[in-house]
Amino acid sequence: MSSAETSNAILTIDLDALVANWAYLNGLLEGAPCGAAIKADAYGLGAGHAAVALAKAGCEQFFVAQIDEAIVVRNCLDDAGLDGAIHMLSGPMPEFGKAVMQACAEHKLTPVLNSLADIAAWKSFNAALACDIHVDTGMLRLGLAPGELAAIAGDASLIKGLNISYVISHLACSEDAATAKNKQQLQDFKSALALFPGCKASLANSAAIFLGPEYFFDLARPGIALYGANPLPGQPNPMAQVITLQGKILQVRDVDTPQTVGYGATHKITAKGRIATVGVGYADGYMRSLSNKGFGFIDGFKVPLVGRVSMDLLTFDVSGAPHGAARAGAMIELIGPQVPIDAVADAAATNTYELLTGLGPRYHRIYKSENT
Amino acid sequence: MSSAETSNAILTIDLDALVANWAYLNGLLEGAPCGAAIKADAYGLGAGHAAVALAKAGCEQFFVAQIDEAIVVRNCLDDAGLDGAIHMLSGPMPEFGKAVMQACAEHKLTPVLNSLADIAAWKSFNAALACDIHVDTGMLRLGLAPGELAAIAGDASLIKGLNISYVISHLACSEDAATAKNKQQLQDFKSALALFPGCKASLANSAAIFLGPEYFFDLARPGIALYGANPLPGQPNPMAQVITLQGKILQVRDVDTPQTVGYGATHKITAKGRIATVGVGYADGYMRSLSNKGFGFIDGFKVPLVGRVSMDLLTFDVSGAPHGAARAGAMIELIGPQVPIDAVADAAATNTYELLTGLGPRYHRIYKSENT
Repeated sequence: MSSAETSNAILTIDLDALVANWAYLNGLLEGAPCGAAIKADAYGLGAGHAAVALAKAGCEQFFVAQIDEAIVVRNCLDDAGLDGAIHMLSGPMPEFGKAVMQACAEHKLTPVLNSLADIAAWKSFNAALACDIHVDTGMLRLGLAPGELAAIAGDASLIKGLNISYVISHLACSEDAATAKNKQQLQDFKSALALFPGCKASLANSAAIFLGPEYFFDLARPGIALYGANPLPGQPNPMAQVITLQGKILQVRDVDTPQTVGYGATHKITAKGRIATVGVGYADGYMRSLSNKGFGFIDGFKVPLVGRVSMDLLTFDVSGAPHGAARAGAMIELIGPQVPIDAVADAAATNTYELLTGLGPRYHRIYKSENT
Repeated sequence: MSSAETSNAILTIDLDALVANWAYLNGLLEGAPCGAAIKADAYGLGAGHAAVALAKAGCEQFFVAQIDEAIVVRNCLDDAGLDGAIHMLSGPMPEFGKAVMQACAEHKLTPVLNSLADIAAWKSFNAALACDIHVDTGMLRLGLAPGELAAIAGDASLIKGLNISYVISHLACSEDAATAKNKQQLQDFKSALALFPGCKASLANSAAIFLGPEYFFDLARPGIALYGANPLPGQPNPMAQVITLQGKILQVRDVDTPQTVGYGATHKITAKGRIATVGVGYADGYMRSLSNKGFGFIDGFKVPLVGRVSMDLLTFDVSGAPHGAARAGAMIELIGPQVPIDAVADAAATNTYELLTGLGPRYHRIYKSENT
């Protein structure tokens, strides 16, 4: 029955801002198309909603991590009468049988082949179906290893007959424009591409788009910047803010005797003041590391989070906000125009990716768009 | 289509262990009944499954945080032909209209009244329906403040006509058996109870059950210990482990040249070794703070997590495990008998509560029980 009236918090996702961010990045790419990483449920914001909005705007290439995610996206696109290639980064997992490969075929998904074993399995399953090749150039996670590339260089038949959509790789330090590792990975990627003549290539994530045209190839696949995070640490954020999180004040307490707030009694009130309790907690992804470090805004007044973050509750010192603003029933901005997601992630001692993907299931979600 | 075959990780929840933990705590209570805190989807493990298993075992009192959670639990109990009181800690939220109160009436839920405003609203809505009274004794989050208790002391009509199930309060530091704050809160709670003659009372969470009979009153309402965490920090854990998390190895890489692993190139391999990549990441609640600190077990061999935790992937140094064990397709234990949840939470620099409630939606979940 989730509703704005009965939920303890409201998460608003601005699909127009998402689309504007995609269009902005697309415009930087000098004609190379812009895809979208919508894995992990579009970084927590809803993969189906994101895919449909982006596909309507012209995005044709979507990247997810796992097969279940891929099927959700395919179904949402189908329901909206839209098309798009859906690339599945985990690959066909031949060690577990044919189930993933069969699902790829059934739902028109493009598996990313990460090893010679993946390639062999896919060829024997159905080489005519579209696939991607992932070449590792310095992450040491997934992708063809140098030795496997050498094997292909020695025996081109290993990849013969494959219907390759893109050869891809991934940068380890793209947010650090000065590191030599980017150039090294670029060079290694180019060397690997020589083994796949005529194939399209894709390297750039969000930050790599800002490293320049050398990194564009035939497709960029940004994620985090689409969702409003700053792809240029230390510089002004060129992206539009996509999410707003508002928590309801359940209760306000006047305090006039020395008291402590929350678990472990980590915050002590010594002067007169007011504490507002909000119905959001770490079970909602408002991270516990924000204890005594987070902040909110209420009617233009900045209010510090005091005490530990509880599972379902937050406590703010609202002594500096007017009584009429900080009252039971009012909303506190926890993420939004005055509380940028990157600042919240900083305060939580993590990155914006983890903050977004951790957003929990209890929020009442509102998808906002002028275009639908 | 989530299945063990196609998912990148399997989360097994042992409902018999959950029930055994409840029965163990129940046995400590010298006749006082034991309820169960199943808020935040039973700390991430599935409120419906937990409620049904516990109700079958004899648990009659369930605590949730929010109205949507309460309705899910009621529906699951109804579907299983079971009954139980469902207490909703956020209260009736009268500032947002009558929707929550109406939902309480419709689904036979017991709202926890946290203020005189809540009490007045509930009385005017329907005083005959069951409610709880929450007295704050030192959390400064929700609950009647000292001034509100004084008002009731001066005018008993404020609570006249209420159908009170329990008067409750909550300890701030129950895991610290030595702190004076426990005794102070106990004393303040007893003083408050004098204002509610004839009413049942509840104070103890998991750790407070181990503080002794003074804390038992008429109902305990443990949460975290039910789910296998140690309620006695620094002592042997008396609880049974409830969850096992196994991640699939997607790929194993032999490394014989110096290389770095993952984002930011934070882990350097200098000797020959092997890296296994597992299809789990911080989007699954495997916290990013476990970067270069977590560990797993494979076939009895402890393997350290190296490099940063990615959104969808983990990398383990499996050089110390036999080749036959650390291979693509094998499972690594990420949480389980050899990797206790409390140890994972410690390594992540948080508590077990946040770790559990953060477990993500992509796991294939298996609910295990001999009794159903």
